[in-house]
Amino acid sequence: MSFTAQILTLYPEMFPGPLGVSLAGRALAEGKWACDPIHIRDFATDKHRTVDDTPAGGGAGMVLRADILAKAVDHALERRPDLPVLAMTPRGVPITQARVRQLAEGPGATILCGRFEGFDERIFDARPIEQVSMGDIILSGGEMGALLLLDACVRLLPGVMGAASSGVEESFETGLLEYPHYTRPVEWEGRTIPQVLRSGDHAKIAAWRKQRAVDDTRLRRPDLWERHSGVRVQSPSGAQRDLKD
Amino acid sequence: MSFTAQILTLYPEMFPGPLGVSLAGRALAEGKWACDPIHIRDFATDKHRTVDDTPAGGGAGMVLRADILAKAVDHALERRPDLPVLAMTPRGVPITQARVRQLAEGPGATILCGRFEGFDERIFDARPIEQVSMGDIILSGGEMGALLLLDACVRLLPGVMGAASSGVEESFETGLLEYPHYTRPVEWEGRTIPQVLRSGDHAKIAAWRKQRAVDDTRLRRPDLWERHSGVRVQSPSGAQRDLKD
Repeated sequence: MSFTAQILTLYPEMFPGPLGVSLAGRALAEGKWACDPIHIRDFATDKHRTVDDTPAGGGAGMVLRADILAKAVDHALERRPDLPVLAMTPRGVPITQARVRQLAEGPGATILCGRFEGFDERIFDARPIEQVSMGDIILSGGEMGALLLLDACVRLLPGVMGAASSGVEESFETGLLEYPHYTRPVEWEGRTIPQVLRSGDHAKIAAWRKQRAVDDTRLRRPDLWERHSGVRVQSPSGAQRDLKD
Repeated sequence: MSFTAQILTLYPEMFPGPLGVSLAGRALAEGKWACDPIHIRDFATDKHRTVDDTPAGGGAGMVLRADILAKAVDHALERRPDLPVLAMTPRGVPITQARVRQLAEGPGATILCGRFEGFDERIFDARPIEQVSMGDIILSGGEMGALLLLDACVRLLPGVMGAASSGVEESFETGLLEYPHYTRPVEWEGRTIPQVLRSGDHAKIAAWRKQRAVDDTRLRRPDLWERHSGVRVQSPSGAQRDLKD
């Protein structure tokens, strides 16, 4: 059975959306993965199909009700008990390429997308749900994060990237940023492709690329470098600011 | 003039896509922002409309040509010299909520989306482009990241969220994760909403929420807590692993 994405959402019409074109779209058409949005509102119990209510203790916005969410999650688990359930939330663990690769090697994922202020916290105590964050920014809902996560998974499915790229030399797969790329024209606006890349010396090219990956990671992402090397870099925030200025 | 997103892409049909529905879609229809995809292929110079070539030094995949990219970027800059140009790349600076807020307060953004192995690095030496990463995962292209970034910006535009939420209490806005939410029913599957949130004592509620934000940030995101407090937390990766297991 191919990789299946069950998406619990209030906006099922967002899927497959941009995943219906290009690489992921071709893979979808070829049956290499399946996209199965499930409308959370179908699990509402009143005639207004209410899914949310005001936050206990006061405050702005609305909170998704645990009882409705549980019905939707239970339905997804009943259909596909083999799929891990992930919720998109800024309170979650930041997604990593290692987790993406794990997911891509498995049967798929059920992805719970929030809207409004978020989920009633009790859903996470009561059901086996992995809370995942797609970066330290706030979105209008979990749908965009789900699209991002699925894009990252789908490209790793067997036969999707084909011979174009193995994916193993990419950024983060080695714990480092990827080295910079160059292509023709050899000279452009007075800037040339680094000579070593035109040398034909494969050992030298590999060494140069490795060194650039290390140098760029240290300069641009001291946090990654620290995890990779175990060596603490001084003033990481300062270094990142330098890069942007 | 309203916030304008100029998106340089090989898949203009992906936009506005999911940004055409819900909150962002309503704002788009109301003219609170404009979505303006520009096809990179329109700047190709041969009859096959080639935009990429093989990587110098060898390797898998294709690299977007600096000369073609420069024509597209120059066109975008000519139309809207006031917009900052951001490229979506895993080699970039991780996006932050502070940068999102800055962008949302400005006139918009030109967003350069890569495909294949990436960009010829010389484009970044030759043009004023901010390299931005949307999390440490590898996508099939920059489009999904652009959708995510725009979603984060659009919700902050004047009048988009309305009175529903000011956004200032959200995760990351304070440097901490947001506290957990609860809503009716008061009791569900034997789990009750924390008593303090039902007390009506606003000072106590605020103190409880502050403490939960601090506790959850320390436990779940020692990296954020360290930046917030200046105190280094031991074994951050261990703590994050505990949370997931």
